[in-house]
Amino acid sequence: MTVLLTIQYDGTDYSGWQRQSNTPHTVQEVLENALERRLGAFRVITAAGRTDAGVHALAMPCAFVCDNLRIPLDRLPLALNSLLPPDIRVMSARRVGDGFCPIIDATSKTYRYEIDNSPCSDVFARRYAWQIRRELDTAAMRQAAAHFVGTHDFMAFCASGGSAATSVRTIFEINLRETANRVSISVTGSGFLYNMVRIIAGTLADVGLGKLPQERIPAILLSRDRKKAGQTAPANGLTMVGVVYPNVL
Amino acid sequence: MTVLLTIQYDGTDYSGWQRQSNTPHTVQEVLENALERRLGAFRVITAAGRTDAGVHALAMPCAFVCDNLRIPLDRLPLALNSLLPPDIRVMSARRVGDGFCPIIDATSKTYRYEIDNSPCSDVFARRYAWQIRRELDTAAMRQAAAHFVGTHDFMAFCASGGSAATSVRTIFEINLRETANRVSISVTGSGFLYNMVRIIAGTLADVGLGKLPQERIPAILLSRDRKKAGQTAPANGLTMVGVVYPNVL
Repeated sequence: MTVLLTIQYDGTDYSGWQRQSNTPHTVQEVLENALERRLGAFRVITAAGRTDAGVHALAMPCAFVCDNLRIPLDRLPLALNSLLPPDIRVMSARRVGDGFCPIIDATSKTYRYEIDNSPCSDVFARRYAWQIRRELDTAAMRQAAAHFVGTHDFMAFCASGGSAATSVRTIFEINLRETANRVSISVTGSGFLYNMVRIIAGTLADVGLGKLPQERIPAILLSRDRKKAGQTAPANGLTMVGVVYPNVL
Repeated sequence: MTVLLTIQYDGTDYSGWQRQSNTPHTVQEVLENALERRLGAFRVITAAGRTDAGVHALAMPCAFVCDNLRIPLDRLPLALNSLLPPDIRVMSARRVGDGFCPIIDATSKTYRYEIDNSPCSDVFARRYAWQIRRELDTAAMRQAAAHFVGTHDFMAFCASGGSAATSVRTIFEINLRETANRVSISVTGSGFLYNMVRIIAGTLADVGLGKLPQERIPAILLSRDRKKAGQTAPANGLTMVGVVYPNVL
């Protein structure tokens, strides 16, 4: 049967989601080791998004196939959590249809990018937010954000090293919320290219810092030139918030 | 002149505030090393509260005396922050009257104790909150908290090892706030005995878990017996929030 887990992790101390031969400490490897100890045989786990080193997840869906589940599904989270380190938690486990794929079956994904804009960086935000001390012009950032909504070729907002067949993506919504020195940018889209959310966040920060006029965004999109867009925001501010599967509860 | 610094720190990776001969990594030592590099000679720094290992501070006042301040006061925070690790920040520096003492001159101190009461512990709360998965009866906890308000002998809520002359203290206010699986207990008082806030928080948690009836608190206070009170809540949930000095801006 195919099992969909929803997991939460603090990515600070990991080399990202994906198992790599040269770096031992990835979320996938730690989770797979726990699954192996609890379930014995299972087929490789796939996550909805392969987050980079330092990126966090509030609710990351990932799926695996297991022919003989030795533990009742409702007790699987607790059984795994007792083996997992405190910076990775399994929040839920449920059965899904055979052939379910957390990447292909997703209709929308939401990421959040956090900026700590306090004049003296907040020590409690440092693991989870990009710390920018100079005051940001959030009105300009909000105008800039609106240009990204819709279906565009996001080639200018894609780091090299990605493997996507097309650079056209749809952004359904970008929200920018301000609360007491925090600027929280949430981006919901059909899917994202490599580093796309971090380059969008970095470009919005450049607009907020007055380095880039907001009205230049449409031309940057049309250029398909990475060098025209803004900086790549650091990984620690990024969190995968959630994924929608229309055919799963 | 006497300088009052307000600092913020994430206590997770420190052996508490106070410099100790056998443990090198204390907040005081790290701060004093930065002060020494920037200012040369200064007289030993005193904090309003000597927080234990793992306890945090949102705004901890501490004072030092320096005869020859080589850096303008308004630039001292930035000058120190450039030397300090990211889990300690100096938020402000101001001159106070000679003879000012951050302990004696305080008229009230506020600590906050955070509990993460989500059924599946929140990875982002683990450094800053006590994780209790079983649902807490917060109505009973609120009733229990009210018994602590006022002037009492808090001997039953004091760990051995303290050096206070008297165990009588006044609690001005205890607030218990609930927001989405978080229980936040804030305690404001004239001063606190060794581990007093953590034993109060642990006792409130025992009430919330149904281990201790809330109406027993007055008798526990009267007993002056530490064994009658509840458990000591773990250090990581505790944060020094602030201190009031009536004669300082």
